[in-house]
Amino acid sequence: MKVGFIGLGIMGRPMALNLIEAGHELVVLGGRTGSDALADAGASTRATPRAVAEAVELLITMLPNSPDVEEVVLGENGVIEGAHDGLVVVDASSIAPASARAVHDALAERGVAMLDAPVSGGEPKAVDGTLAFMVGGDAAVFEAVTPLLEVMGASVTHVGAIGAGNITKLANQAIVAVNIAVAAEAMTLAARSGVDPQAVYAAIRGGLAGSTVLDAKVPLMLERRFDPGFRIALHIKDLDNVLDAGHAAASPLPLTAAVREMMTTLAAGGHAGEDHSALLRHYEKLTGEAW
Amino acid sequence: MKVGFIGLGIMGRPMALNLIEAGHELVVLGGRTGSDALADAGASTRATPRAVAEAVELLITMLPNSPDVEEVVLGENGVIEGAHDGLVVVDASSIAPASARAVHDALAERGVAMLDAPVSGGEPKAVDGTLAFMVGGDAAVFEAVTPLLEVMGASVTHVGAIGAGNITKLANQAIVAVNIAVAAEAMTLAARSGVDPQAVYAAIRGGLAGSTVLDAKVPLMLERRFDPGFRIALHIKDLDNVLDAGHAAASPLPLTAAVREMMTTLAAGGHAGEDHSALLRHYEKLTGEAW
Amino acid sequence: MKVGFIGLGIMGRPMALNLIEAGHELVVLGGRTGSDALADAGASTRATPRAVAEAVELLITMLPNSPDVEEVVLGENGVIEGAHDGLVVVDASSIAPASARAVHDALAERGVAMLDAPVSGGEPKAVDGTLAFMVGGDAAVFEAVTPLLEVMGASVTHVGAIGAGNITKLANQAIVAVNIAVAAEAMTLAARSGVDPQAVYAAIRGGLAGSTVLDAKVPLMLERRFDPGFRIALHIKDLDNVLDAGHAAASPLPLTAAVREMMTTLAAGGHAGEDHSALLRHYEKLTGEAW
Amino acid sequence: MKVGFIGLGIMGRPMALNLIEAGHELVVLGGRTGSDALADAGASTRATPRAVAEAVELLITMLPNSPDVEEVVLGENGVIEGAHDGLVVVDASSIAPASARAVHDALAERGVAMLDAPVSGGEPKAVDGTLAFMVGGDAAVFEAVTPLLEVMGASVTHVGAIGAGNITKLANQAIVAVNIAVAAEAMTLAARSGVDPQAVYAAIRGGLAGSTVLDAKVPLMLERRFDPGFRIALHIKDLDNVLDAGHAAASPLPLTAAVREMMTTLAAGGHAGEDHSALLRHYEKLTGEAW
Repeated sequence: MKVGFIGLGIMGRPMALNLIEAGHELVVLGGRTGSDALADAGASTRATPRAVAEAVELLITMLPNSPDVEEVVLGENGVIEGAHDGLVVVDASSIAPASARAVHDALAERGVAMLDAPVSGGEPKAVDGTLAFMVGGDAAVFEAVTPLLEVMGASVTHVGAIGAGNITKLANQAIVAVNIAVAAEAMTLAARSGVDPQAVYAAIRGGLAGSTVLDAKVPLMLERRFDPGFRIALHIKDLDNVLDAGHAAASPLPLTAAVREMMTTLAAGGHAGEDHSALLRHYEKLTGEAW
Repeated sequence: MKVGFIGLGIMGRPMALNLIEAGHELVVLGGRTGSDALADAGASTRATPRAVAEAVELLITMLPNSPDVEEVVLGENGVIEGAHDGLVVVDASSIAPASARAVHDALAERGVAMLDAPVSGGEPKAVDGTLAFMVGGDAAVFEAVTPLLEVMGASVTHVGAIGAGNITKLANQAIVAVNIAVAAEAMTLAARSGVDPQAVYAAIRGGLAGSTVLDAKVPLMLERRFDPGFRIALHIKDLDNVLDAGHAAASPLPLTAAVREMMTTLAAGGHAGEDHSALLRHYEKLTGEAW
Repeated sequence: MKVGFIGLGIMGRPMALNLIEAGHELVVLGGRTGSDALADAGASTRATPRAVAEAVELLITMLPNSPDVEEVVLGENGVIEGAHDGLVVVDASSIAPASARAVHDALAERGVAMLDAPVSGGEPKAVDGTLAFMVGGDAAVFEAVTPLLEVMGASVTHVGAIGAGNITKLANQAIVAVNIAVAAEAMTLAARSGVDPQAVYAAIRGGLAGSTVLDAKVPLMLERRFDPGFRIALHIKDLDNVLDAGHAAASPLPLTAAVREMMTTLAAGGHAGEDHSALLRHYEKLTGEAW
Repeated sequence: MKVGFIGLGIMGRPMALNLIEAGHELVVLGGRTGSDALADAGASTRATPRAVAEAVELLITMLPNSPDVEEVVLGENGVIEGAHDGLVVVDASSIAPASARAVHDALAERGVAMLDAPVSGGEPKAVDGTLAFMVGGDAAVFEAVTPLLEVMGASVTHVGAIGAGNITKLANQAIVAVNIAVAAEAMTLAARSGVDPQAVYAAIRGGLAGSTVLDAKVPLMLERRFDPGFRIALHIKDLDNVLDAGHAAASPLPLTAAVREMMTTLAAGGHAGEDHSALLRHYEKLTGEAW
């Protein structure tokens, strides 16, 4: 299939390369980060999102946040100006659900279908083609694009109408943030009570306190290895979207709000570029000591 | 081995029965809840903790909270009055670490060794003999009693000096409580944003947000089945011990404290006897509606 | 002096009328809420912000939030298009400090001075001309406009550079929100402990717990009179600006964030139009009963 | 009147001296802190609380916390052993309401009346005789002892049945703690946003954000003068009693719990002996800098 791909950063580049490897004909924006690598791999380039849209049947976007998606799709020379019969847009970015719905509605007026399809999994799974797609939007469109998404992902789940993909991703990010923070809180209690956090981790990981976060992040805390991984700055962006979504839906988020403020502490200390396991630093600041 | 067992409640009874089944000679308190069942299974009975202690080499206690353990061990006609050469006490209760240390120190003055060895796993694992023991205390004593604990548990982990078992259990309980609460918070966000929580759960459980809590408790929330399981009232007891331990160690516990106050809400509504997955009710009260 | 006034709502109208009464020549936008009342009192009208700006030496804006100020000043036919020598803009709206700075900088490029000068006091003090102005911006400009602001306010305080007025207002709003919430929290504790909140209020108001909030809001709580006053919806707007400012300055706001989420609860219950003393309802939802 | 006074610390000593000055005949415990000063002023001494009780009509206790009151009243050679016709006990300590009720009930069985009458105001007001008494207990007993309490206090308020005095004091302490913390939070926001906290304080103190706490504590924060005043360690004791009372009454205290955990941070840093205005340090730790 002729597939456009806009947004060739740490995540987008390997995703696009996997599509080429699977035999798809890729069209990307020229002269941007990552475009040379794609061109070398056989992608053709265009000068504007509009031109990319005009050249393809399916267009995937993988951008940092809501304003980027709005600019690329709805801005000058944007995707919407390249609207044509049969074009489908799949936005794999993690953005505000309200923004996903607004972009969808604008495209719909021009006869263009859109799904919101954020992913979880990070760079290693983008490279391996084992991401998890959480997809919102029309069921028939979902069915149609699923095979292509399965090239990039190990699981592709339809969770509801447009915006539902990002709501799901935000629920995911709220849980992850709070699970990391309470792991740091509990391990700090152990350490300050004179008990080895490593021993505590080993003793509890098999029980009801066990979690993917515990296994993925506590070892990093124990070694104080806070290179990303998933950067605090990105998690802040996600939690701000979580809080906006909660405010819009009148859904109170006391724990998410508390951990978002802990991340403010991290930002104050210049640690926004570190992995979110660095939430441990919040507790270190409070206690004045490392484990 | 001749083993005493004091505390034949929901957890203690099946644990004691497993010891009998494994060929140990049990001695229990007569005339109490559960003592008839044990007597029927072959246990002998004594009238006081002192008398039980005098009759055995190893004494296991499985009681609700710190004051109960202090009363049984240090009170009138308590275990300590039955102190004799070679007696070892293993307290499997979940209590305040400071209390475990105090009881240990009092016994040590009379030449009696003690371990604190709280468990995780609940009634089904008590019945199956697959509990997880988190054990604090002298390493040689730990080695000596491990085979016996393995009759009742699938894992027996030495985590440090006396009190470390309960510190570990408390870290476990803090993580579990907060993980449940944020699962309810995130699923409520989904529901109020018009996305099916069941679909969200299915989409995220395999990723970084995945956890034993998510798999064990979200299905109960979805079906609103809040029969215990692990009762809010017991989790409140544990979180109060967590907070006391944090205060003693000057280890701040903002998330644990927040969820403990959510449990106050549950208690206010008469739900303290329900499973801790009923933390969902806190969010229902805030939003005025069920999913 | 020839003074423009844009924003003739509940606050702006009485402020503008006070200026006319003091002998100033007013110019307002025609065909809007409040413009007839002003015209009847002697104000002249213009069709656009640009035309108002062209006609006056000093222009006051009193608008709901940042986007409104940006639209009126920087939008099509906005104030900036009416820039002329000697024009001074005083924005009395409560907006995001970053927005105040951005609007200031855009005006400065056109040679127009601007102060941010949000007020506290509410409608009664707007009518009486006894508002408190918190003013940020150039000291010489502040000196020049102070006499005019004193027509509308009992106190006019210079707090720093542009944006400082709104930072000050936000600090004020954070304190007010949290002081109200903890008053509700403490009075709920008294009521549920069987002690008359009225008696508690009377006993503590003269001591260290005393505050303007306690005297202004607890009587409303006691009578459950939640008609505004200052609406929850507006306080939500302010707290969202507080949180944005905190995030921009890497200044953690755990208590403000907690109370903002309580206000989400109020919004969920359809109480956003009530006075902020209705934060009491959060505690009523949690406990399932009124005092 | 013949008055006993037990507890001659920073608060108790000047209170007792004021009674002597007003012409009352004082009886105190000999050989304790403060007893020499009282003896020099004309008080007679006894060896035990029992003996003090036997010698007087009215007995005032002013002790650190619940266990101290329980020991002095109910312990060996305690006040209760000196019970006699007409004896009235007024406990001016700040203790757990449940403890006040328990001590009252034990005394009542021996025919001794008791009021709980904690004070607010600190050492200076104890010296000046201008404390505020919040009194719980029987109305007739309250009427009878009011003149004597008025020797030590500027206000004496009856707030309800036994325990109500301490509930009122706890409500007071919750409000004070949270008001101080949010003042520090808001002033930190100002400072980190480049606005002088002194200017902010001056601009807002006259408005709705104004409070006794703002005027009493922000100046100390501005000068970083954290010598007590009212020590963090004592406020921790009070907040723990607040939380216990809330848990007993199923009254959620999310803000109080959050600030209690901030105080844990202070304790971790060795600042428990400082004035509670040192809550500012919590925000300094989070941001890594002083104003």
